[in-house]
Amino acid sequence: MRRVALVGVGQTKFGELWDTSFRQMIIEAGTRAIEDAGMEGEKIGAMYVGNMSAGQFIHQEHIASLIADHSGLAPIPCTRIEAACASGGLALREAMIAVGSGIHDIVVAAGIEKMTDVIAEQSLEALATVSDQEWEAFVGATFPALFALMARRHMHEFGTTEEQMALVAVKNHHNARLNAYAQHHIEITVDQVLQSPPICSPLKMLECASITDGAACVILAPLEEARKYTDTPIEIVGAGQASDTIALHDRQSLVNLRSTREAAKAAYQMAGLRPEDVDLAEVQDSTTISEIIAIEDLGFCKKGEGGKVTEDGMTAIDGALPINPSGGLKGKGHPIGATGISQAVEIALQLRGEAGKRQVKNAEIGLTHNIGGSGGTAVVHIFRRQD
Amino acid sequence: MRRVALVGVGQTKFGELWDTSFRQMIIEAGTRAIEDAGMEGEKIGAMYVGNMSAGQFIHQEHIASLIADHSGLAPIPCTRIEAACASGGLALREAMIAVGSGIHDIVVAAGIEKMTDVIAEQSLEALATVSDQEWEAFVGATFPALFALMARRHMHEFGTTEEQMALVAVKNHHNARLNAYAQHHIEITVDQVLQSPPICSPLKMLECASITDGAACVILAPLEEARKYTDTPIEIVGAGQASDTIALHDRQSLVNLRSTREAAKAAYQMAGLRPEDVDLAEVQDSTTISEIIAIEDLGFCKKGEGGKVTEDGMTAIDGALPINPSGGLKGKGHPIGATGISQAVEIALQLRGEAGKRQVKNAEIGLTHNIGGSGGTAVVHIFRRQD
Repeated sequence: MRRVALVGVGQTKFGELWDTSFRQMIIEAGTRAIEDAGMEGEKIGAMYVGNMSAGQFIHQEHIASLIADHSGLAPIPCTRIEAACASGGLALREAMIAVGSGIHDIVVAAGIEKMTDVIAEQSLEALATVSDQEWEAFVGATFPALFALMARRHMHEFGTTEEQMALVAVKNHHNARLNAYAQHHIEITVDQVLQSPPICSPLKMLECASITDGAACVILAPLEEARKYTDTPIEIVGAGQASDTIALHDRQSLVNLRSTREAAKAAYQMAGLRPEDVDLAEVQDSTTISEIIAIEDLGFCKKGEGGKVTEDGMTAIDGALPINPSGGLKGKGHPIGATGISQAVEIALQLRGEAGKRQVKNAEIGLTHNIGGSGGTAVVHIFRRQD
Repeated sequence: MRRVALVGVGQTKFGELWDTSFRQMIIEAGTRAIEDAGMEGEKIGAMYVGNMSAGQFIHQEHIASLIADHSGLAPIPCTRIEAACASGGLALREAMIAVGSGIHDIVVAAGIEKMTDVIAEQSLEALATVSDQEWEAFVGATFPALFALMARRHMHEFGTTEEQMALVAVKNHHNARLNAYAQHHIEITVDQVLQSPPICSPLKMLECASITDGAACVILAPLEEARKYTDTPIEIVGAGQASDTIALHDRQSLVNLRSTREAAKAAYQMAGLRPEDVDLAEVQDSTTISEIIAIEDLGFCKKGEGGKVTEDGMTAIDGALPINPSGGLKGKGHPIGATGISQAVEIALQLRGEAGKRQVKNAEIGLTHNIGGSGGTAVVHIFRRQD
């Protein structure tokens, strides 16, 4: 495969975008990425779009055609990828493979979700369709319920505390205040998290990601051509994707995700890097326990110590290994299909030194971690700045 | 890119499979493909699955994880692709790119749709979500209505007759009788077609593809390794994908599909072949006019002469260029996401000489043509037997 680099990034503001349509959002994110790359749109050879449930949220499938059309990119190939909350991460992977293979040169990877055009109950119903419909959704197990089972087991096995979990949300809300594109710009305290209404015990409202609208976009090029578009190409040096059982009850363990571990293993191997080489990471914190389990499975700390290292400040922006400097899913918002791409946008900005008030110092290597459902799919990418 | 070949194929029977679940269908098709390749399942490195609307049809998104899980393939990467009726064709393309790039060796491309678990009205509503929701579906334009507009214009510009269109359905039903996996095993006559109830004039009931359940699966390998699994590798020598406006009203013409023409151009160019080199083709006949327009846009006859060459018998199994020997979407059935893969299954069987009573003589080069919606997406593959 050819070496592949990010040469342009862009995203919309994340939030409840009542006055912005699906069509407008994707064009806004795409235009920003194209401007960022200083590129003519006609250079683009293909596009991949991550989206979970436009069919359910806005009664529109076949969104790749809609997007190619409304962004003026037809007749180039445009392909939609769906893998629940990992849709964006998988779109990035397919775009990378397409450039790597040589079949296309300049390829866009985008992600989008418009979740607020339906009432909240319909939104929750749509979200439940990415768990095991017959064995989980049908009996009323929402995603917070599934992650609550993992949290309880983590507390039981390792003594992880509700305060440690709350600290994940506190940190990510703090980071989000420094990100103009984030949904939530309010600092929260551990007490506020602990006293927020229970969603599914032990998880409380301020520990679960919000319903969010948003789109994000990155432009990929062969590394050898990347300097035509940017002074600082961000190479994708590692990529891994893996599956696990869709239902939680079929897994050997509730405290680690096999899919994350396998995807990370493949990504580290491809990159020739180890967890200790990573300078910062954007990981899936759809709930607070998700981030704790993720940093363990990615090898950033020992299994069971995710809560403790959070408490010790390792994951803060000025910590030893900043996690979710963008604000993460909790603070920045979680427009499902857009999340995996937005993670790549943040890593690119950080590695270029363009992250403003939330800039991580001496960032050269970054990692993104995006999972679908309760971990039925996971995808990991490792990025390295090429000066 | 490395050269890529089909080494195993399989599918379920197409039809109203009341007693077979989504999970059972994909395993049945996959098992047949693996048996056909004489391969251990553990050789498989990744899987792509085409599916249009499991979220709407069976309230299950994230089906790639479900499939990896239930087919025992986890933790390998498994990715769902959606492009309306072209979902299967695009899954095949991504699988080819993945093998071609070298990131995976053995890759499965599958397609599936379970359409009969909802009532017919819900099925039609789901189908309408792949047209332009705001400008077509919302005002009640179903797919037969959109294709009826194309048919009327084709009749107006070229004198195409209702009898010529009916002959497409008569031929494809005849072919389907020779295919054990087809949904419809009844011969029909031109009179029966003409007298069947109007769906949207000039299109009648017996001119429109049915609601169908089904799954299909092909296994791809690098050509240089293909002989480990088969004596007759079927190489994918050409591949093209293109987009067009999602809505019909934005197009310059109603009598040709820009997406088909662009996709075909790319596929012929990659293969170094011309339309006259093709020995048989499986094309998208979701309505009778669709097949007529397709064979024109693919270069098998001049624009406007699709009806006439059908009347003259060119497209019959024993004609100069057999079209849809499998029975096509009309006769074999059209389980949306499975269709593009099932087309590849038929071409592989034909090129291997294993198509039984519907065998096309001296078939060495075959083509598949799969479109999404009213042509917002098109994908063309060209296959060549490697003896």
